[in-house]
Amino acid sequence: MPIKVGIIGYGTIGKRVADAVRLQKDMKLIGVTAHCYNYKIHAAHTLGIPIYEIDDGVEAENHLSKYPSESLKDNGIKPAGKFEDLLDNVDVVVDATPKNIADKYKEQFYKPKKIKAIFEGGEKHSIAECSFVAQCNYEEAVGKEFIRVVSCNTTGLCRTLHAVNQAYGIESVHATMVRRAADPWDIYHGPINAIVPVLELPSHHGPDVRTVLHGLEIFTTAMSVPTTIMHVHSIIADVKKEASVKDIVELFNDTTRIRTVKNTERVRSTAEIMEFARDIGRLRGDMPEICVWEEAIGIHKKKLFYLQAIHQESNVVPENIDAIRASMGFKDGVKSIKMTNESLGIK
Amino acid sequence: MPIKVGIIGYGTIGKRVADAVRLQKDMKLIGVTAHCYNYKIHAAHTLGIPIYEIDDGVEAENHLSKYPSESLKDNGIKPAGKFEDLLDNVDVVVDATPKNIADKYKEQFYKPKKIKAIFEGGEKHSIAECSFVAQCNYEEAVGKEFIRVVSCNTTGLCRTLHAVNQAYGIESVHATMVRRAADPWDIYHGPINAIVPVLELPSHHGPDVRTVLHGLEIFTTAMSVPTTIMHVHSIIADVKKEASVKDIVELFNDTTRIRTVKNTERVRSTAEIMEFARDIGRLRGDMPEICVWEEAIGIHKKKLFYLQAIHQESNVVPENIDAIRASMGFKDGVKSIKMTNESLGIK
Amino acid sequence: MPIKVGIIGYGTIGKRVADAVRLQKDMKLIGVTAHCYNYKIHAAHTLGIPIYEIDDGVEAENHLSKYPSESLKDNGIKPAGKFEDLLDNVDVVVDATPKNIADKYKEQFYKPKKIKAIFEGGEKHSIAECSFVAQCNYEEAVGKEFIRVVSCNTTGLCRTLHAVNQAYGIESVHATMVRRAADPWDIYHGPINAIVPVLELPSHHGPDVRTVLHGLEIFTTAMSVPTTIMHVHSIIADVKKEASVKDIVELFNDTTRIRTVKNTERVRSTAEIMEFARDIGRLRGDMPEICVWEEAIGIHKKKLFYLQAIHQESNVVPENIDAIRASMGFKDGVKSIKMTNESLGIK
Amino acid sequence: MPIKVGIIGYGTIGKRVADAVRLQKDMKLIGVTAHCYNYKIHAAHTLGIPIYEIDDGVEAENHLSKYPSESLKDNGIKPAGKFEDLLDNVDVVVDATPKNIADKYKEQFYKPKKIKAIFEGGEKHSIAECSFVAQCNYEEAVGKEFIRVVSCNTTGLCRTLHAVNQAYGIESVHATMVRRAADPWDIYHGPINAIVPVLELPSHHGPDVRTVLHGLEIFTTAMSVPTTIMHVHSIIADVKKEASVKDIVELFNDTTRIRTVKNTERVRSTAEIMEFARDIGRLRGDMPEICVWEEAIGIHKKKLFYLQAIHQESNVVPENIDAIRASMGFKDGVKSIKMTNESLGIK
Repeated sequence: MPIKVGIIGYGTIGKRVADAVRLQKDMKLIGVTAHCYNYKIHAAHTLGIPIYEIDDGVEAENHLSKYPSESLKDNGIKPAGKFEDLLDNVDVVVDATPKNIADKYKEQFYKPKKIKAIFEGGEKHSIAECSFVAQCNYEEAVGKEFIRVVSCNTTGLCRTLHAVNQAYGIESVHATMVRRAADPWDIYHGPINAIVPVLELPSHHGPDVRTVLHGLEIFTTAMSVPTTIMHVHSIIADVKKEASVKDIVELFNDTTRIRTVKNTERVRSTAEIMEFARDIGRLRGDMPEICVWEEAIGIHKKKLFYLQAIHQESNVVPENIDAIRASMGFKDGVKSIKMTNESLGIK
Repeated sequence: MPIKVGIIGYGTIGKRVADAVRLQKDMKLIGVTAHCYNYKIHAAHTLGIPIYEIDDGVEAENHLSKYPSESLKDNGIKPAGKFEDLLDNVDVVVDATPKNIADKYKEQFYKPKKIKAIFEGGEKHSIAECSFVAQCNYEEAVGKEFIRVVSCNTTGLCRTLHAVNQAYGIESVHATMVRRAADPWDIYHGPINAIVPVLELPSHHGPDVRTVLHGLEIFTTAMSVPTTIMHVHSIIADVKKEASVKDIVELFNDTTRIRTVKNTERVRSTAEIMEFARDIGRLRGDMPEICVWEEAIGIHKKKLFYLQAIHQESNVVPENIDAIRASMGFKDGVKSIKMTNESLGIK
Repeated sequence: MPIKVGIIGYGTIGKRVADAVRLQKDMKLIGVTAHCYNYKIHAAHTLGIPIYEIDDGVEAENHLSKYPSESLKDNGIKPAGKFEDLLDNVDVVVDATPKNIADKYKEQFYKPKKIKAIFEGGEKHSIAECSFVAQCNYEEAVGKEFIRVVSCNTTGLCRTLHAVNQAYGIESVHATMVRRAADPWDIYHGPINAIVPVLELPSHHGPDVRTVLHGLEIFTTAMSVPTTIMHVHSIIADVKKEASVKDIVELFNDTTRIRTVKNTERVRSTAEIMEFARDIGRLRGDMPEICVWEEAIGIHKKKLFYLQAIHQESNVVPENIDAIRASMGFKDGVKSIKMTNESLGIK
Repeated sequence: MPIKVGIIGYGTIGKRVADAVRLQKDMKLIGVTAHCYNYKIHAAHTLGIPIYEIDDGVEAENHLSKYPSESLKDNGIKPAGKFEDLLDNVDVVVDATPKNIADKYKEQFYKPKKIKAIFEGGEKHSIAECSFVAQCNYEEAVGKEFIRVVSCNTTGLCRTLHAVNQAYGIESVHATMVRRAADPWDIYHGPINAIVPVLELPSHHGPDVRTVLHGLEIFTTAMSVPTTIMHVHSIIADVKKEASVKDIVELFNDTTRIRTVKNTERVRSTAEIMEFARDIGRLRGDMPEICVWEEAIGIHKKKLFYLQAIHQESNVVPENIDAIRASMGFKDGVKSIKMTNESLGIK
């Protein structure tokens, strides 16, 4: 019998996880929640996804509160039920709600109803029993009630650093994270023409990586730049065992959910990575793999340098699928990753 | 027997027309051309599209000439033949080459080999026997050797103005075209932080519209702005017969390849139109329909105002498909449009 | 005796008007207000401008409320007094406060204390006895208690349309306003990569122009684009009397606070206008003149087309200075404009 | 007798150095060169700067070659003479020509005419007898014929790293340089919406820093982002002697041409640094000091992290002035720096 999944919060992550759940043979998407009519819900309805009404007023994002009269019914969408009805019919929820909601829902609904829940990286580590990146610590999550998929940046750092650490050992790492300032649909946030340092020291990303890669010594610096499509990380790792550039290229090529890209293929920027994802027919043009530029891998003695690009909208989507399986007691992480990858066309 | 189609030039338009040809029951994609290995060709190869080598050096775009050693064979792609081999096997080509090439190819290859050819809007009107927007002048193109699909901007103007003109009559039109400065993949062109007026008066767009909508009095002003995803046109038409906003909304809703969008659905910008296209599963996130904002349609006496968004990468794709059929003598324009629309999921 | 001026609100407009007041021989800047320490206040202090504390908590802009402990004193600035002290020492205030404050201050302070006040274009027409653009309706404002300088966009429209109307007569006008989405310092507002139509019909700009150019038939359409430095207006005017392009160039060259710019001087964009302003040594790189591209002026029978660029940060600054004089009963508008222009190096 | 200075190349750097020369008591600007009429030359003429014609056709930048008929005379500018006339009247030139010209001019003109020359960072180290950052190696340059002022990025790295190295010793450094993709006036270069890694390993910036800070172990990674106003460097230095954050703040505050900025002053981004420079009345809104965010300085054991912003248009301007003095045999570097700083209002 397939795992019955509900998606709470139908934004950038929620809608992608919903699509991915629908592609899994061992899962069934019971429904998603909506608090008002909008183009995203219209699209979901068109795809035949059941919509459950949620009307506590909490979920409304800042700028989405302007048209309070926009009910689903007035726009031709018959809800499949209320939020609670959805909860009564699922084994597990993926909670992709905006900040400051998940914790309340966990206490008020998921716990009493004994529903398993997958949380996202915007929530604190303490909301769940473990933080999660499938290829790093799948086994830690098996059978847990509450699992937290870490943020897109942390997931990206964990994937490549875990591979390097396993193969060559890491003394310490510094990463400068150059972040896209807003998602493509988000017309509200700037900057339009500036670089904005994240003035938080130590950055929360180092500690966040350690919730998955326990004990790794890592420091991070972050800034936002006026682009919408991908983050780029500049990583310097002091490794314990010497490697050649060719070794590192092979290591990344042999590691799941990492993709090397090349300037000589004309993939010279984040824009061309996104274009490539569109060209190979990826749904929504997504690129869940971490992309490392081959020509930007450098080694000086035991210092390893590389640049990686992170598609912030999609790289955690396969992690959510694996986390669902882990929560339901599916023990074989390698197999789960393989199933997820095949369903999504991921390398 | 299906129409045998070759695509010459595999860039923004070429690759999309190739995909669209593959979706037509009455057409067969014989192959596309490539002058060097790159991610686009890699993607085409992955999809099983035959690649024909073209090696005259002319086709290389500015910034793509840096890696001359990048042969197809060195990258595991066995070409299906040479450019001329492709020409020998097709009924019609879609020439989506960069500027200044199509004319040469027409004289040197297409004419002597008696191959029909569809040209794009970057070429002059005089390259073909007629300029073309399917819903405006399909019948003019039936059986022609050479047809020119007009540019994305001209196509967008023609679609909505033709509808208005048919229903209410147009005295004269002024359009201010606010153009995306570069396509999403194009990292070479600016501006990054400026508005750049197109200082060409009279603009070429007015005359270009008249190659399709013969005799229409139209003036245009254009400028480029730092965005990559869509053009927006601000249109003012002096109409002959009074209409209400509701009339115009209905007119556009009843016209093919036009879509009204609404602020109350949260489609408040070009970014959200693109997101919606991704959400409904469009290949590459394309939106070939011209999108008109319902809330931006205004009428004062016999002056009609509206704002429309143009997806420059894809709106001419269905036109190319219809032009192929027209060139091959398929007489029923309405049926061709219907076939094309259904294959592409267009309204 | 010089006119004693106080500036309430020290943001984009306030700080520029303060600088301009300091350059007038017939005015004296008594002081500006500050609600917390920041780099703008630091700069004012460095220039020797007296700072008056305002602590009602209302003035705090959204994003400036994060460091409540940042007092002036802790940062080495001794306030010259409180807000009310400033009011007790001035003849006239320029109220450049954020929205929703001016009305309250007017009733609570300016009226009871019988202080004249100049308001800005973000306020409604009804806040003042007249709306104002010096070269259009100076005489209307002479001796008024409360004058409203209209917004940067309205000021730009009024300056050129008034000149055209005086010389050739205007039947009706349509303007498409392509607006910079945020000021250069503003890192909070987007869009980063989209065009955002202003879905308000009829736009408020038409009626706003009529508060100055009474009875002018004008319709406007607006959108925001991802740039920070200038607005661009695409204007089409149906004129009563025919003119040549040369006539219009001469008209604009002969009109104060309008400047024609030329592509052949390499001024091809808003960026190059701003660079030119920096090159000629303008304070803060300001360009208060409306800039019209010579090559973009077009005429077809009695239709006049042109493109103009508006420096949103500075074009209303000279208007504020003239409004101060008008409010104090200075009767000669032409002389006031001349005095202001000379002090600011404006053509 | 003042040093007679000529400026060859009147672009972003040339025009600023010309202004700075005019502010020095011990220098006299003899003139600048122009190859055609444009707004920059118009501004120079307005300021009374003598213009010398240069007509070899080499200097024309890509996009500036469109109006070949634009002579100076046709636009009311009487040249003071030819390029060679300028050379005959100067002691030293600052060669701020586009790439690939300086070397030719050096051999053809400067050497035979025995004119001292200051070159810019776009040229190779080998063009001059030494590369130069005043506060690092002034004495090396005293009396040299040819001195190369290093690039804006290298200058920025040298200023802060030299201070840290002198005070605490540096084992090795890694810098990630996030570069503005184009200057504010430059509407030609992108990207508009992408991050573009500089795929050159090892980067040339490490070796370039070593031309000034001999022997420093430094590795660099670089990328371009869609902004026009400043570069940001993320720096990690392994230091020999432990320091506290307070120590580093004091070190930078005590070092010339470095400025610490603070989030609590609302200087949260490169945009607000530029706004601050405008507010304090800097010519063209320049900020030649390297700006380090206090809140972004971090220390973990002997690892020092910081973020610095570089105003690419102006930070090398004071270096050019000091290099002129050094070339003419002025021996006291500290005094030269002081004179330059005072004239430009630099801390």
